[in-house]
Amino acid sequence: MINVAILGCGGLGQNMALLIEQKKNYKLVAVCDRSGYVFSENGLDGVSIKRAKEVVEIKGATPSENSIIDLLVKHKDKLDAIFIALPNLPNEFIPNVAKEIIKTGFKGVIVDALKRTRAVEMIKSLDSEFQANGILYLTGCGATPGLLTTAAALAAQSFVEVLDITITFGVGISTWDTYKATIREDIAHLPGFNPEIVSKMTDEEIEAELNKRNGILELEHMEHADDIMLEFANVCSRERVTTGGIVDTRNSKKPISTNVKITGRTFEGKVSTHTFVLGDETTMACNVNGPVLGFMKTGMWLYGLGVRGTLTSADLTARFDPAKENYLEIQKRQQEALKKVTVMQ
Amino acid sequence: MINVAILGCGGLGQNMALLIEQKKNYKLVAVCDRSGYVFSENGLDGVSIKRAKEVVEIKGATPSENSIIDLLVKHKDKLDAIFIALPNLPNEFIPNVAKEIIKTGFKGVIVDALKRTRAVEMIKSLDSEFQANGILYLTGCGATPGLLTTAAALAAQSFVEVLDITITFGVGISTWDTYKATIREDIAHLPGFNPEIVSKMTDEEIEAELNKRNGILELEHMEHADDIMLEFANVCSRERVTTGGIVDTRNSKKPISTNVKITGRTFEGKVSTHTFVLGDETTMACNVNGPVLGFMKTGMWLYGLGVRGTLTSADLTARFDPAKENYLEIQKRQQEALKKVTVMQ
Repeated sequence: MINVAILGCGGLGQNMALLIEQKKNYKLVAVCDRSGYVFSENGLDGVSIKRAKEVVEIKGATPSENSIIDLLVKHKDKLDAIFIALPNLPNEFIPNVAKEIIKTGFKGVIVDALKRTRAVEMIKSLDSEFQANGILYLTGCGATPGLLTTAAALAAQSFVEVLDITITFGVGISTWDTYKATIREDIAHLPGFNPEIVSKMTDEEIEAELNKRNGILELEHMEHADDIMLEFANVCSRERVTTGGIVDTRNSKKPISTNVKITGRTFEGKVSTHTFVLGDETTMACNVNGPVLGFMKTGMWLYGLGVRGTLTSADLTARFDPAKENYLEIQKRQQEALKKVTVMQ
Repeated sequence: MINVAILGCGGLGQNMALLIEQKKNYKLVAVCDRSGYVFSENGLDGVSIKRAKEVVEIKGATPSENSIIDLLVKHKDKLDAIFIALPNLPNEFIPNVAKEIIKTGFKGVIVDALKRTRAVEMIKSLDSEFQANGILYLTGCGATPGLLTTAAALAAQSFVEVLDITITFGVGISTWDTYKATIREDIAHLPGFNPEIVSKMTDEEIEAELNKRNGILELEHMEHADDIMLEFANVCSRERVTTGGIVDTRNSKKPISTNVKITGRTFEGKVSTHTFVLGDETTMACNVNGPVLGFMKTGMWLYGLGVRGTLTSADLTARFDPAKENYLEIQKRQQEALKKVTVMQ
């Protein structure tokens, strides 16, 4: 059983709580946000977390202005792994959180779903500090970077030289405010914006920006860490990796199927392209949180073998953990409980 | 630098010699077959191996009726990793070779590209013997099982439960006798055949069988080890995995694109399918030998961390090794040298 803490209680963190409840070998024991933290060795209830607007609303929560530190200092010995599900605005935010975690003395596995190249570089530069402090930090372990990066590194094996890796994602969400932080990060990739600018924008300003674009964000040549992760893993130089996508913030149907195309030259001199396409019914929550848990499982195995420091999803694969035998019941109960909330609101 | 020995000098082994020559961090130092073995600490020339009808023809070779044992007893300390590229007919052949390798006292990584479920089960059952004898044995590390199995295990991460994994391969080769052993293994999957029957057939009988089918082998519900490898890796039960394909033995164009489809149910209750498709220009030689080298690299890393015993490609990913800077020259030289041979024949 892997005892997990989630730092952050936005769209990703809340859905992770629901997912973990359906999985066999993970137990969610802690969640925190700016308002406070909640810890329970017996495990936390997914629906309560999904329902909460702030962590302090959850039964048993402790209000705190320094919730990450307070949680870890007090309960670090009961935690095997941490998922950092915090919005990363500005770039140095999660790297700074990582430094704070080191100071608490936490030993174990940390997984993030960071996206920007600069942020992953900062995490990578903490390699020796993680090593010296008993931490294995896995970065870029969501969908892209993450699932698609590992797929690209794997697909590369048919080639002697990789010539091009093109990642194209499609995201459809019915209202932008379920994934505020993610949408803000996407806007930061648009021409004329950056993480600093976006971090200072109000929700109304974000909404006005979305209105100008009919709710559609078209992203090209994004600063996405797949590039350096694949470079670190020796797959190809960063210039050969491009990431772009279309995000529809008003429609849960994906505007385009998420895919990665890997083009290379074979040892026989032929140029060819492998393609990995994700099913449209899999949402961002499925394609980020599932891989995060899988990489965490690989991380726990490697941690047991003595591996410390920073690795990325391009160096690893994710290990699958089966569902609980009664997961369909749990899923149904979650859905009914959440439907009730929606109707009540 | 990884010093590699290839056991077997058929289609796969010979192409592996050409591939290794283009790669940066591998050196091919030994090859053997029924006729003898050749060892050179400075590395062997790919073209000489590709040209040889038997290993004894290669300059510096030692004739031997017990070539695997003789090679390993004499040179095991100079070998980091072994690729078993022998035809596996009957099923117990490679498992028996593995037992012989253990007896020689070789310590290091062994990789195979085994295909049949029964054979992989036999290798798996040697787990504790490999552990006790300082060996990390990676089984099923070719294309399928191998590349496609890892892709399936990775793709599974978007789901809570995996409902179906369907592997379909297309192979096109211009003449069957370049891949005699592989074609024999494929025929062993046809109704009315098995490994024992096929191992007793003459080349003329194989050819007659191919003529009956206009050179096309249509394979359905094959006994392919992807099933137990994915079961061992907790992805799904073996009954949910099916493998089939079409092999054209008279046409180098693939009759169908090789692909794997992974269908599962998400934590949100949706059923969806991810697809991984290989480019048609990538041949069996690319899709088997490339992954074998990649899994070998992962194996070397894990070996250094103290991992011993048996793992499969469903537990791991393959790590990419870059090409030599002058690999295009090497490729050209290989192609010209081999063209000359063809013209001369």
